[in-house]
Order: sequence, then structure tokens, then C-alpha cells
Amino acid sequence: MSLSGDVPLVVSRRTRVTPFTPRVEEAGVAGYTIYNHMLLATSFRGVEEDYHHLRSSAQVWDVSCQRQVELTGPDAGRLAQILTVRDLSHLIIGRCAYAPVVDHSGRLINDPVVIRVGDDRYWFSIADSDMRLWAEGLAAGWGLDVDITEPEVFPLAVQGPLAEAVTGRVLGEEVGDLGSFRWKWCRFGGRDLLVARSGWSNQDGFEIYLDDPDLALPLWDALMEAGRRDGVAVGCPNQIDRIEGGLLSYGNDMTRENTALEVGLERFCSLDSETEAIGRDSLLQEAARGVARRICGVAFDGRPLHLVRPLPVAANGAMVGEVTSAAWSPRLGHGIGLAMLDTPFWRNAPSLEVVSPEGAWPASVVSLPIR
Amino acid sequence: MSLSGDVPLVVSRRTRVTPFTPRVEEAGVAGYTIYNHMLLATSFRGVEEDYHHLRSSAQVWDVSCQRQVELTGPDAGRLAQILTVRDLSHLIIGRCAYAPVVDHSGRLINDPVVIRVGDDRYWFSIADSDMRLWAEGLAAGWGLDVDITEPEVFPLAVQGPLAEAVTGRVLGEEVGDLGSFRWKWCRFGGRDLLVARSGWSNQDGFEIYLDDPDLALPLWDALMEAGRRDGVAVGCPNQIDRIEGGLLSYGNDMTRENTALEVGLERFCSLDSETEAIGRDSLLQEAARGVARRICGVAFDGRPLHLVRPLPVAANGAMVGEVTSAAWSPRLGHGIGLAMLDTPFWRNAPSLEVVSPEGAWPASVVSLPIR
Repeated sequence: MSLSGDVPLVVSRRTRVTPFTPRVEEAGVAGYTIYNHMLLATSFRGVEEDYHHLRSSAQVWDVSCQRQVELTGPDAGRLAQILTVRDLSHLIIGRCAYAPVVDHSGRLINDPVVIRVGDDRYWFSIADSDMRLWAEGLAAGWGLDVDITEPEVFPLAVQGPLAEAVTGRVLGEEVGDLGSFRWKWCRFGGRDLLVARSGWSNQDGFEIYLDDPDLALPLWDALMEAGRRDGVAVGCPNQIDRIEGGLLSYGNDMTRENTALEVGLERFCSLDSETEAIGRDSLLQEAARGVARRICGVAFDGRPLHLVRPLPVAANGAMVGEVTSAAWSPRLGHGIGLAMLDTPFWRNAPSLEVVSPEGAWPASVVSLPIR
Repeated sequence: MSLSGDVPLVVSRRTRVTPFTPRVEEAGVAGYTIYNHMLLATSFRGVEEDYHHLRSSAQVWDVSCQRQVELTGPDAGRLAQILTVRDLSHLIIGRCAYAPVVDHSGRLINDPVVIRVGDDRYWFSIADSDMRLWAEGLAAGWGLDVDITEPEVFPLAVQGPLAEAVTGRVLGEEVGDLGSFRWKWCRFGGRDLLVARSGWSNQDGFEIYLDDPDLALPLWDALMEAGRRDGVAVGCPNQIDRIEGGLLSYGNDMTRENTALEVGLERFCSLDSETEAIGRDSLLQEAARGVARRICGVAFDGRPLHLVRPLPVAANGAMVGEVTSAAWSPRLGHGIGLAMLDTPFWRNAPSLEVVSPEGAWPASVVSLPIR
């Protein structure tokens, strides 16, 4: 089905505004979604124009909706490791790690980035589910000595090839020394802010974990001013760019029905490590018997609308999977998407077809990221 | 702050459409929100016109977003009782119960309606938080033998003074025999549907828990056709009506920061029952020492916008609380709201003022429901 697409979002306290929302509105936001009960922009000058700009300059993104689940206390480290199948024993202070959180059957509850903030202090920077409740339920049931909160932290991302230059002018050139998924404290407005080299784009960039809402507009304005000569603009996660980058969206490309292995996250699942992680046994068994379906990149001859529901994928008339996210790539001149395909179609695909409302689109599997 | 209010919601698989969405769109939905990761309409012909209609006729509401957390298995009953501070020992099959779910400190995680569907089968019909994860975490930690799922159930509400007549024509006149918060199986399209006398309005009404999406449009169309002579219309939860009714919205009038007693739910908290309920001890202690603040109804001389954030409430220049939801009551000719006020201001209020962007509005405490 398609939606008219012009029905306004009605915002209330429940669908929280952020400290940056005034600037997002001033920049002429063209669409919103709700993510973790909070506002998130979806485009400003159109998804295609935003895409071209993101690849050539730098953008400032309000990603406050990437909420933190904070674990503190004596059992914080133990609970962190119970929560994720990724081995966190090497996660020293100053590092971040993409760390799947799964249930006992290996199915995805969230796919956060874990940040080791202190010895007994972890942030799970979460995708769109109330993972805090899962952590709290487990901690209560296991009798762990840990505090679990959602602190007032509002991530601001600077993404794009000029992100290092722009961010460096505001937070100090040393941010350029940060490796990928490393973080450091940077001084701004008399406060130390956690700044990581990370972000939900296919470009270089940083995420500034602002923990003082009073600094939100000064920080935003400083970045915009520092990037003026480079044409910095207000932006948001971009559907074309993130599909090209193979960045998965929880709720879109993977749901609670999918295991971490189906979603291709095996390199983030430390199945050989003897951890207490929930779901490790199930994933070991699944790996041994073989994964039944798998996410992959697809290219197709068609101009997709923004998907409201997955589109079926057929091979020789039989349904073999579905496209979960799609976009038109203006750079490549064809449709691109992420698709969950039955084994062995993702590996050795014959002639595939995306079954769209406008007819069948010839399709093929492509490797991720899509170049 | 205020928002422009005309930015479209961009829908994706993550912010789920419902089986009724085509009819909601055809009816000219004027605003959307996201609730439990799913679409929910906020108005059709304007909140005021929808309000007048709701009070005089009947409306069909797509409240699919009221998701079910289903507990089944030998420990389903035990887990249900661990989850809520309301004593469920009298909850026989055929009954529903509004049942606060709180954490160990008595703070609200959700405020669902619990439905006893079978001996070892419960539905928690939830407000806007992933309460399933809390239940799963607890069950895992306690080692309970229970399955916890989100089944494909899509509640459809019929609300308004003519709801009984309209619903009876489609599901049988016996629905009129149902008492409040009672349910029965009703036959439609060859299927037994769970139908409860309940709904999130200040009017009479029913909720039909449709568990077959293929029957969604037939059921919708049958209700609209059956109510044509009575002027039945498409509607949705109405901000004016629900404030007048004193119906609280999780995320708006109460958050994780509020205890069940602050929110005035003591009559749903069986603190004297010797249950295993999480949070009971904390609420007993809070009751003994006295509740520090409390929700109540307020009336004020002002025409509120739709609130994006709470509005402060002052007494003699000092802040004593905040208005969490507000609307203009066309029936009463003044502003109405729900407010969380420090003790003793909710009980014995001197001259209060709502501090609005347009200046101070004289206000007073009124009893709920607001008549």
C-alpha cells in the first residue's frame, strides 16, 4: 500500500522534542519520524539533494533519539556482557563497539553501539526499542548490583567528508587523531563532551554526546558557523547513503523475528568466547546447521517509492525473500535496496525480480557497501 | 517551544501501518502520531469537530497500536501478578482490569489493561513502551516457564453514545449485555473475536480485538455501513474528551519518573494483598510517608495550543507543578488540563497560574472527570 505522505506528525510530550529541535525547524525540516519516542528528521531539501550534499561537504545532524542506556555500578560490566554476544573484554575506556543484543533464541532486541565511558560505566547507544526494560528485567531477575538509567544525553552528529575539518575548528584539531570507533573527551563551553568517530552514514564523521541541554544551541551554532565556508548544512540520516553503506535499520531491515546471523552480524558475535551472553548458544547452533536466510544488497531496474512495507522478491516465480529498504541511487542510476533472501539465493542468485506495485523489476544481488 | 505543526510524518516498516490504514487514509486523516512503533491518527475533521461528533454519535477508531503482550504457559499467571501491583486473583476469564506496571521503586513502566483470555493466557493491552522486554527480562531472570509474544492482534474501537447500537448490528445485540471491563467472544466472518466493553474515551464503547488482518476491511466496512443512519464517522482518541474524562496518557501525563500513587492510581494498586508484585513494597512505603505530588484536573482562563512540553504552574510566584496535557473545551468555554502538582496544592489550591507562552492564565483545581 502507499500512503498520501503529507499527513503532519502531531508532536506531544510523549514524542519528545530535543534541545536542537528549534534549529531543525528553522532549517526547514521536510519530514519527521519518531525514534525511541523522540523526533528525528528524515529530510530537509529532499532525500536526493541531501545525499549529494552529504557526500561533498559536511552536515550537522540532531540524532538525540539515539538514546543512551547507562549501566553503572559493580555489576555494570557483567550485565553489559550478558546483554551482548560481542565479547567486550577488550573494550577499554576510549573505545566503542557495535554490539548486537539478542534474546535467548538469538533474535535481535536492539543493535546498539556500546561505549565504555568508565571502569564501571557503560553506555548502550540504542536503536529504536526500549532496550532499557530488557536490561532492567534481567538485572532484577539475576539480582545484579547495577543502576540502569536513560541519562539526558543528546547526540549531535557531524557527517561528511569535511566533518573532520569542521568539527576540529570547534572541538580542537586533535579530533582528527581519533580512529574509527574511538572516543575522547573534548572541551566545549566549559564542559567535557564525549566525542566519538562514528555515525550512521557511509561517510567520515563524529558523534558528540552532549550531556548539557543548555549547550545545545551554542554547540549547534558553533559548528554551523565553523563550517560556513565549506557549505555545511543541516541534515539527517540519509536513506540513499545508508543503504549504499549497508547500514541496517532496526525495525526496517531487521526485526525481533530475525537472528543476528541472518542479518549478517557474525563478525560482531563472539561465538567462540566463553561469555555469559544471552543467545550465544542459540547462535552457535544456528551457525552449525546453517543460516536459513540472509540480508544482502540488491540492485534493480526500478524507481522505488519510500517503502511502507517490504516488497516481495521472486526467483522463477517463487517467493524467495523481500526487500526491506529501498531507494533510488542518483549516482548509480538504478534502484538499490537491502533484501532478506532465503539461502542460497543471496549467495548464488539466478534471475531475481522485485515484485513492486508497478510491476516486476529485474534485480541482482550486489555486495555491501554498494559502490 | 512551539512547532510549525505541518511537517509530514514519513512512514516506514519500522513505524508500522495497520490493516485499517487504507480506510484511515481514505477518511482524510489530518494528523498522525506513532504509538508502540505503529501509526495512530490524532484527528480527522479537527479535534473540536471530532469531539462534538464523538459525544453525539459513534466513531470507529483504528487503535491497532494498542499492542498485546501475550503471556502463555504454566507460569503465565504468576508472571502476570509479578508484573502488576493490582491483585489479579479475581481476574476470571471474561474480565479485563486496568493494571499499573511499575518498577521496584513504584515508577510506571506501562499502564495496560490486562485481559484474562484463558486459564494460562493473558493479554496486556499496552500503552506506549516496549513492556514486552521488561516481562521477558524478568521471566529470563526468574527462570519462569512462560512464552511472551506480541501476537498479530489489531484492536478496533467503537466509541460514543451510539456505540452499542452500531456494534450490536454487526456483532449481535448481546454485546449490550456486557458490563464495563467485561468481554465475550463474538462471531464475525466465521471467526470468534474478543470484544470488550472498554475504550480510551469518556463515552460508552467497545474494543474489538481483531486477530485476523484479512477481516480488517470487512469488519470496518460493516461497522460503517451499520452506523450510516446514525452518522457514524471515522475517529480516533480525542484530546478534549480524554482530558475531560481524566484518562491519563503514558508518556504525557505520567512518565518513568512518576510513581503509580502520584498518578492517582491507588485504587488499582492492591497494596494490602500479599502478592509477588514488583514495586508493592515501595508503594506501601510511599503511601505511609505521604505522596509528594499528584495529578489532578485543572481549569484555566486560556486557550492552550497542543502542548509539546509541560507548562509550569505557579502559586504566589513559586513553581508548584506543571500542566502535562491541555485542551480548549468548547463545551465549558475554558481551558482544561491535567496537572502534576506538589502536595498540598492539588488538594487545597490557592490562586494558581498556568505559565503559558502568552502570559499567566488564572487556574484552579477541578475534580476528574471534568463535568
